Amino acid sequence: MKKSLGARPLVVPAPVFIIGTYDKQDRPNAMCVAWGGICCSRPPCVAISVRPATHTHGNLLEHKAFTLNIPSRGQLKESDYFGIASGKQENKFAATGLTPVKSDRVHAPYVREFPLVLECQVILNLQIGSHTQFVGEIADVKAEAEVLDDKERVDLAKVDPLIFSPDQHAYYTAGPWLAEAFRVGLELKHPGGRS
Amino acid sequence: MKKSLGARPLVVPAPVFIIGTYDKQDRPNAMCVAWGGICCSRPPCVAISVRPATHTHGNLLEHKAFTLNIPSRGQLKESDYFGIASGKQENKFAATGLTPVKSDRVHAPYVREFPLVLECQVILNLQIGSHTQFVGEIADVKAEAEVLDDKERVDLAKVDPLIFSPDQHAYYTAGPWLAEAFRVGLELKHPGGRS
Repeated sequence: MKKSLGARPLVVPAPVFIIGTYDKQDRPNAMCVAWGGICCSRPPCVAISVRPATHTHGNLLEHKAFTLNIPSRGQLKESDYFGIASGKQENKFAATGLTPVKSDRVHAPYVREFPLVLECQVILNLQIGSHTQFVGEIADVKAEAEVLDDKERVDLAKVDPLIFSPDQHAYYTAGPWLAEAFRVGLELKHPGGRS
Repeated sequence: MKKSLGARPLVVPAPVFIIGTYDKQDRPNAMCVAWGGICCSRPPCVAISVRPATHTHGNLLEHKAFTLNIPSRGQLKESDYFGIASGKQENKFAATGLTPVKSDRVHAPYVREFPLVLECQVILNLQIGSHTQFVGEIADVKAEAEVLDDKERVDLAKVDPLIFSPDQHAYYTAGPWLAEAFRVGLELKHPGGRS
């Protein structure tokens, strides 16, 4: 028997994405967001949602570009800080000692020390309610060689990303590899066979 | 030095969401999606992306409602199956032995055996490219009592959700609790203090 909890913004896992943008004077900023995810395969696109009051929101409208940086467990303190300070008041790169690097493909800075980066061009934005959703087309993915497997695929265990639990306001780590996808369920498939 | 991997649809963690819908004859269907996430806090909304060729896509257009069901690690096989079989060819609830339950708040079925369910009303859809994004306003969250903590918050560790790694085509588990959010980064904040 399920208990009704009312309407809450809640899924698990939620991600921890650090959004890199430039302001009007091309000063770099970074913000932590948990509202977002991939929204299209071809072209590859990712959606992120931010409140209009944030510094990042203005930067996104100004330059129509962002980076999505995925931190490792060891970068927890900096990532959390990116979510509680405002770029309107503080130089967040200076405060953390992290290094902004101009992207090759879009007009936005990425975080050199973070292992995985998506360079994104904003193709649309949508005011939903408290948050505006920005859809970014992924122009390039950049990764440290240490987080790739032997087929040059991004290995989740090697990235060792943070995981956010919205209802608890807590961070978790990722756990062990469990199974190959699109395989373990095949035995339930109709004898018509694998499609 | 980062390596350029080209444009790929990839973030970590990606979620494993089971989307419940009814077809025109009110037959229940369930589909596995990894493209999605929360997109607004007020009203609480979640975005999911599905290809137009899927049975779920037609059902979403027909009834403008879905449930988003979050499975536990023990429901891996059924969840994977929901992503490799089509409701156009197979009765996926019958194949898995799972139980569709009519939602209280929207015209869509949820999966009784899964620990966490969001009942969602579609408020808009957006054709991006290969995928259509559907934004659902969360009308209610329902959870098994066993996945709640002592403050009635959804406890990620108790849900024990699946985590998807898109580049590897692999499932992972969640790992241990790491830190309270909006706290661990405070020490980097400007002496102006906590906002």
